[in-house]
Amino acid sequence: MKFATVSAEGQQFYGAVVEDGFIALSPDFPDWPSLREVIAAGGLTRLQEAAAGRSVTHPNGSFRYDIPVPAPEKIICVGVNFPDRNAEYKDGTAQPKHMSLFPRFPRSFTGHDCPLIRPPENHTLDYEGEVAIVIGKEGRRIKPEDAYDHIAALTLCNEGTIRDWVRHAKFNVTQGKNWDRSGAIGPWLVPFTDAAQLDEARIQTRVNGELRQDDVLSRMMFPIREEIAYISTFTTLVPGDIIVTGTPTGAGARFDPPRYLKPGDVVEVEATGIGILRNTVEDEA
Amino acid sequence: MKFATVSAEGQQFYGAVVEDGFIALSPDFPDWPSLREVIAAGGLTRLQEAAAGRSVTHPNGSFRYDIPVPAPEKIICVGVNFPDRNAEYKDGTAQPKHMSLFPRFPRSFTGHDCPLIRPPENHTLDYEGEVAIVIGKEGRRIKPEDAYDHIAALTLCNEGTIRDWVRHAKFNVTQGKNWDRSGAIGPWLVPFTDAAQLDEARIQTRVNGELRQDDVLSRMMFPIREEIAYISTFTTLVPGDIIVTGTPTGAGARFDPPRYLKPGDVVEVEATGIGILRNTVEDEA
Repeated sequence: MKFATVSAEGQQFYGAVVEDGFIALSPDFPDWPSLREVIAAGGLTRLQEAAAGRSVTHPNGSFRYDIPVPAPEKIICVGVNFPDRNAEYKDGTAQPKHMSLFPRFPRSFTGHDCPLIRPPENHTLDYEGEVAIVIGKEGRRIKPEDAYDHIAALTLCNEGTIRDWVRHAKFNVTQGKNWDRSGAIGPWLVPFTDAAQLDEARIQTRVNGELRQDDVLSRMMFPIREEIAYISTFTTLVPGDIIVTGTPTGAGARFDPPRYLKPGDVVEVEATGIGILRNTVEDEA
Repeated sequence: MKFATVSAEGQQFYGAVVEDGFIALSPDFPDWPSLREVIAAGGLTRLQEAAAGRSVTHPNGSFRYDIPVPAPEKIICVGVNFPDRNAEYKDGTAQPKHMSLFPRFPRSFTGHDCPLIRPPENHTLDYEGEVAIVIGKEGRRIKPEDAYDHIAALTLCNEGTIRDWVRHAKFNVTQGKNWDRSGAIGPWLVPFTDAAQLDEARIQTRVNGELRQDDVLSRMMFPIREEIAYISTFTTLVPGDIIVTGTPTGAGARFDPPRYLKPGDVVEVEATGIGILRNTVEDEA
């Protein structure tokens, strides 16, 4: 079962996504205002039960996807996490000892099927396809072997970036990674119940149908278990937190000349067992 | 008037701080669950009116300070923003063209009079005294000349840092800046009504009474008006957002040998017209 947050007629709902549309479930759970509270209460199973046998409340085409957890406490992205990607930086360094991490604000993302926004200030909008995990159980100093117990669900992320702004400043990529609606998360959450959902997953990114990124999560330099362990060393992970786990080689910036996104492009991020996150590109109105 | 968020007997309140204690006002404003919503509604004046003539509900000693806006949408810190501080890095670079920015999560801060926590993993806990501004009015691409109109209030920040972890990774300081309760924000919010509150302010940090940092905000490389303009180029600033504006030279890491904080130390950050943010240091229990 797949759970999403959507908007229709100016209202936001969470619920289940099925073949012919969306089943709004949030009206039945007033104590859980968003999927963040559902996850914190371990409530995905109850949503699944509530959806059983129900027909769609919103047929396809009558709603818009939002990011699945609209206001998580934190979104943390892992940078440069595939071996060839480290080499892409051509700075002669070996595999780093620690992972690179940067936060993104929720408003830097849009939902599935919504346009990524290319701002007038800079046109180096680039894609990065990634699997994202959603924390289900609070924890600090989580051991790698326990890490998967803290994951409630999986989703996809297009970790869209304004490349020129990533190197604006000395020590941080903040400003290149946080343009409003420059990336996307979604389309939905898939409950995480089996290690193979991550360990055997493949991640691919296509631009206008052309394969640009293609790798398996098992090749990550810092596996997801280690990401959770390392991040939770310094900060308490709480339900609804999102970790964007890293992108394979093949972003547009690495082509010569670079191949940045332009209005009308269609970007698809796909991972085994999760689905396809699809976004068009538009110039800011 | 000074507005704070405090906890007492397991409950959180916001209200006014006066000579002999705290006047809880939040019970009178159920539509505004936190100071974030008060600020978004332009309600600081109404709080001030509500406090007039009231006696304290919580005498001094009967409450604990929390961070003034407990769950802002974002906290953005400006790095290396005083000229001598750039020189401290001794990397031969001139003044950078753009400011360095990094987010911190609210849980990396504690309130006034609460202990900063030194974790067992690493003992390079350091102080950075700074003035923080709280956004009052939403805006994107705010012009420097309009920037002050978007500030609702001022507060103080000890932007406490685990130095060794700041350089863990290639491109970002995230993990050294986000240890749970490694920094502090507070004690309170002072409404911002006059440009001189920032333009003529001095910021000082003392450790166990010894002056370590001392400078005037007018010497910033990137003045606060430019911080607001630059940040709002890429992200929409919303009420309750906090910008931590930069620290002067004199952090403990810059001494030879470094002078890091240790249990029992008392750190005070003081700025003209705002007050004193005081924290002790404790080893994590």
